[in-house]
Amino acid sequence: MRMDIAAVNALSYEDFVNIFGNVVEKCPIITAAVWSRRPFASLTALEASISDFIDALPESGKEGILRCHPDLAGRDLQSGTLTRESHEEQAGAGMDALNPAESSRMARLNEEYKERFEFPFVVCARMHDKANILRQLSERCRNGRVVERARGIEEVKKICCLRLQGLVLSDAPNKL
Amino acid sequence: MRMDIAAVNALSYEDFVNIFGNVVEKCPIITAAVWSRRPFASLTALEASISDFIDALPESGKEGILRCHPDLAGRDLQSGTLTRESHEEQAGAGMDALNPAESSRMARLNEEYKERFEFPFVVCARMHDKANILRQLSERCRNGRVVERARGIEEVKKICCLRLQGLVLSDAPNKL
Repeated sequence: MRMDIAAVNALSYEDFVNIFGNVVEKCPIITAAVWSRRPFASLTALEASISDFIDALPESGKEGILRCHPDLAGRDLQSGTLTRESHEEQAGAGMDALNPAESSRMARLNEEYKERFEFPFVVCARMHDKANILRQLSERCRNGRVVERARGIEEVKKICCLRLQGLVLSDAPNKL
Repeated sequence: MRMDIAAVNALSYEDFVNIFGNVVEKCPIITAAVWSRRPFASLTALEASISDFIDALPESGKEGILRCHPDLAGRDLQSGTLTRESHEEQAGAGMDALNPAESSRMARLNEEYKERFEFPFVVCARMHDKANILRQLSERCRNGRVVERARGIEEVKKICCLRLQGLVLSDAPNKL
């Protein structure tokens, strides 16, 4: 049951953080900070407030956001300790149904990526299937660190937008 | 079993975030960000990195940190959903053993504080007893918002330092 933006704007900070606290994975501080910017004119305005907050962070803060993300098809998926949102997204992309060859390739590439960049590979899993994710991971391992940090943050914002769209009605509902 | 700073500096970001992710309550992004600043010369240098990161946040980000904190003697204490660290600190200050009069006074003052400032009352509980906490809460309700935001962040840093000191050996161990 999605809320309209007026209902969002009426929330106390406690309810706002309870509902939206994980739109950026494990970073409720971001949600809690943008509550200060309410009222939001629209879902788009709420998305923009989050995006602006992220952009204003120092580079170390952006790396911090990436480091709060779990590996794809990693330890947290296997041990059942993913957040609800991450679990749904990873399962939707088939990350819980890799065959042994895919699974070991994914693990190897994740480690290579983390060794190279010192943060994990982040991709908006809901926009891709498993073959596509493996190919991107392999390709992105060859980028430079600055490019990958920016690319990871772009993906964080895509994930955030999809999570928000699951919670808030879009800006242009059909009015009959 | 506390680690020395060399052991801290040897941690992967994943282990670092697992161990230190809650030194600022529910803000693992801060821990994950300052990992970029390693190696740390000492525990004091690690504390300073966290403090500097917090100081560089916009005011909304500081409010975001405060809003990630639970009420003292509030809903999370009653329902058992506090973080381990918060539970120990609140219990140590007697927040789980308020008599009915204290309990209702605390609840009323917490609501008054949140209504006035739009973030919760944050105090380093381990440095105070319950009478002292109630008195401070009552007094701080009369401050201005800018003063209280800065005061709350000071308390966040005290909490952070005590949590860190429980995990990392201090800078000047006795060398015989």
